[in-house]
Amino acid sequence: MIIGVLGPEGSYSERAAKLWMLKNDLGAAKLRYFEDIEDAFFAAATGETDLSVIPIENSIEGSVGVTLDLLREDGAVISGEVVVRIEHCLLSKGSPEEIRVVLSHPQALAQCRHFLKTNFPHAELRSTGSTSHAARLAGEFEEMAAIASSEAAEKYGLKVLLSNIQDRKENHTRFIVVRAEKSGKYAPTASACKETGKEPGKIRGKCKTSLIAYLAKDRPGALYELLGAFAKRGVNLTKIESRPSKKELGDYYFYIDFEGSDSDALIKDALEDIKAKVDMLKVLGSYPALGNSEA
Amino acid sequence: MIIGVLGPEGSYSERAAKLWMLKNDLGAAKLRYFEDIEDAFFAAATGETDLSVIPIENSIEGSVGVTLDLLREDGAVISGEVVVRIEHCLLSKGSPEEIRVVLSHPQALAQCRHFLKTNFPHAELRSTGSTSHAARLAGEFEEMAAIASSEAAEKYGLKVLLSNIQDRKENHTRFIVVRAEKSGKYAPTASACKETGKEPGKIRGKCKTSLIAYLAKDRPGALYELLGAFAKRGVNLTKIESRPSKKELGDYYFYIDFEGSDSDALIKDALEDIKAKVDMLKVLGSYPALGNSEA
Repeated sequence: MIIGVLGPEGSYSERAAKLWMLKNDLGAAKLRYFEDIEDAFFAAATGETDLSVIPIENSIEGSVGVTLDLLREDGAVISGEVVVRIEHCLLSKGSPEEIRVVLSHPQALAQCRHFLKTNFPHAELRSTGSTSHAARLAGEFEEMAAIASSEAAEKYGLKVLLSNIQDRKENHTRFIVVRAEKSGKYAPTASACKETGKEPGKIRGKCKTSLIAYLAKDRPGALYELLGAFAKRGVNLTKIESRPSKKELGDYYFYIDFEGSDSDALIKDALEDIKAKVDMLKVLGSYPALGNSEA
Repeated sequence: MIIGVLGPEGSYSERAAKLWMLKNDLGAAKLRYFEDIEDAFFAAATGETDLSVIPIENSIEGSVGVTLDLLREDGAVISGEVVVRIEHCLLSKGSPEEIRVVLSHPQALAQCRHFLKTNFPHAELRSTGSTSHAARLAGEFEEMAAIASSEAAEKYGLKVLLSNIQDRKENHTRFIVVRAEKSGKYAPTASACKETGKEPGKIRGKCKTSLIAYLAKDRPGALYELLGAFAKRGVNLTKIESRPSKKELGDYYFYIDFEGSDSDALIKDALEDIKAKVDMLKVLGSYPALGNSEA
């Protein structure tokens, strides 16, 4: 079994994948590292990897736009999720006063925006494909620092100059586990994705479903009607996010996560109802909701 | 009158501000340039500028996270909006085959992600505070290129190597015009922000209102109820966007734009209704909705 992640070694995606493997007894799986999120995603969609673990949302900086856009493409569905605590460190071969360049992934730079503005107002900021790629590059010159994990420091022989430098101490990233749509091989099993049944009559518990809906512009109340399909069945939304259609300003896709599985009669019924209300519906899959896996 | 924008000269924010001045007969106003969006925003909030023109949303890459976060802070409200067509150019002193470094604002780099991956897969990407700042820096070395406007090329003596390089040809950015909350001086006049009245009984027309609402987690159906306050009054939403509260993963503020002015009885009534339904409500102001001002 091969699991794709954003590389090189020492990335938070790698940590997420290892946590996923641990929780799912997949110790024998091998990791394959990709240069960017898009490559890791398409590797799963085309079957080059069995699964890929992809960042989708951070508690400080919000959604990873490219991941939301990729989910609209054909070929991949969601098999699970995993949450990783993010403690960014400032890594370098040099000392703080030597630093002229700070490298990291744009999401990490944004999560440390205030830190950088206050402490390194004149540093040049370089965007890299991942935090671990930044760490690897920062090994070249003493005037360079990377924002990355402590694992990356170890991996690339850098000193941890400062730790926990993001603008809010509490910082988590949610990753999704994607697989080829055609392959049922790594779909969540029915038992993994089942309601707890502890609270009869309430759709709460271990399962979560994700979808993308498109509502043509200028249909007043269309989103309200869509949400009504959930509300009148007592289905709890855990997330709603809009993302540009890229066709014109003010035209959006809606990304919705909710509790329950598409194998439940109630959710099936809700999805049928929604299909009739929207201009496009893509169900991205039902999967066990692990919550803060690494809190 | 002083209008604050993201600088230096040649930025899209400058173009937006000039368009705003033209449409509002403010030819005598002076521009003041700021190093980042935050500084331009707080300049308006504290009265250092009379107005500041701030990017909030792009049709390819979506919301500008820092702007949404700043709107939650006290001190500034929205007085208007202006939309600018964005045609990114690749600017350099050198020739395409010499380019090793591409500089731009992170939003512009993201809008040109495919272009960069296809044409400059090995270039180093540097984040700058603005596209025009990137252009200014790119003048230093022939191996550097900036992604910026054609005005910036002229301003900083660079060649336009390629134009319209963003991943979708249609590309617009919406800017908001903010002013100090305490100062009524540059608030939209009642006549500027009035319904057209062309379609009686329908809240459509020249005016738009923006708000931020917070709904505590785990209140199933809360968002549905909130949207119901608009739907049952026939009020059309033009945008709904979630943004992390930064307290924990899965906890969001909702940013909502809708048609109508808070001086209308119907909207006043809707806002009272909403206030009772949410855990926090901030009305950001009513202002003339200009639509695609530069389409």
